[in-house]
Amino acid sequence: MNETTITAQPDTPFIDVVREFDATPAQVYRAWTDPDLIPQWMGPHGFTMELIEYDATTGGRYRYVHRDADGEYGFRGVFHTVVANKRIVQTFQYDGRPNDVSLESLTFEDLGGRTRVRTRSVFPSVESRDGAIASGMENGLRDSMARLEKVLTSQ
Amino acid sequence: MNETTITAQPDTPFIDVVREFDATPAQVYRAWTDPDLIPQWMGPHGFTMELIEYDATTGGRYRYVHRDADGEYGFRGVFHTVVANKRIVQTFQYDGRPNDVSLESLTFEDLGGRTRVRTRSVFPSVESRDGAIASGMENGLRDSMARLEKVLTSQ
Repeated sequence: MNETTITAQPDTPFIDVVREFDATPAQVYRAWTDPDLIPQWMGPHGFTMELIEYDATTGGRYRYVHRDADGEYGFRGVFHTVVANKRIVQTFQYDGRPNDVSLESLTFEDLGGRTRVRTRSVFPSVESRDGAIASGMENGLRDSMARLEKVLTSQ
Repeated sequence: MNETTITAQPDTPFIDVVREFDATPAQVYRAWTDPDLIPQWMGPHGFTMELIEYDATTGGRYRYVHRDADGEYGFRGVFHTVVANKRIVQTFQYDGRPNDVSLESLTFEDLGGRTRVRTRSVFPSVESRDGAIASGMENGLRDSMARLEKVLTSQ
């Protein structure tokens, strides 16, 4: 399995994620934006995902809910920029922390048949970033990346 | 005239703006979101403003162009959250720096007939924030706030 590198330097509001996939940018991008594929990988192991809205176009918006036996967790945001197979800039909000809206920039880099995905999330404060880390988002992210790899392999 | 306080701590990606107005939150909010009023104050002295789109609702988007004798400068973004008279969270992009999308959180605080507006902008990197400062955005912001005060006084 490919590695997921998550970097959160102290005293900054950034979280950086780098992950490579053994698939083309078009394949990875499709899994990242197709409402039929997203619920197959997005979120931690053991959760179901309901996609309420997912319009991955510039100016579009998304909303989804993760559920497990303990409860449900809603997320939403808007897409500032969507360039197919290349780049996504979107906002991100967990309903439980509505004042901690973050901005995520994703790039899909062509490594010649393989793809490197880079994500930079920036939060409105260092405390807000630290809160996201404390909520366990790193594990959820690693789970998601592993699940996405499986989806890409099975296609 | 009320003072505009702009804070940009070194080595952070934040710009904070605080400005009070001798008007109610409803009046300030209206000037901030009404497509007929915005071109009367937004932007530096000496520029005209063309509002191409300005849908200040959650999930809406905006686009406008500032023009002077030297050229034109386009801006666009999406509204993540809009709560009338209280709070706006929106993305912001200058067309000349499309990779430096920032996220702005505005609050309209009721001081009893007067209003304190706070804006926090967060950029995807410290360099990107420094670039925005170097581009002269502080002067444009001070001009805008002074012009907005005039619009509010004349109503």
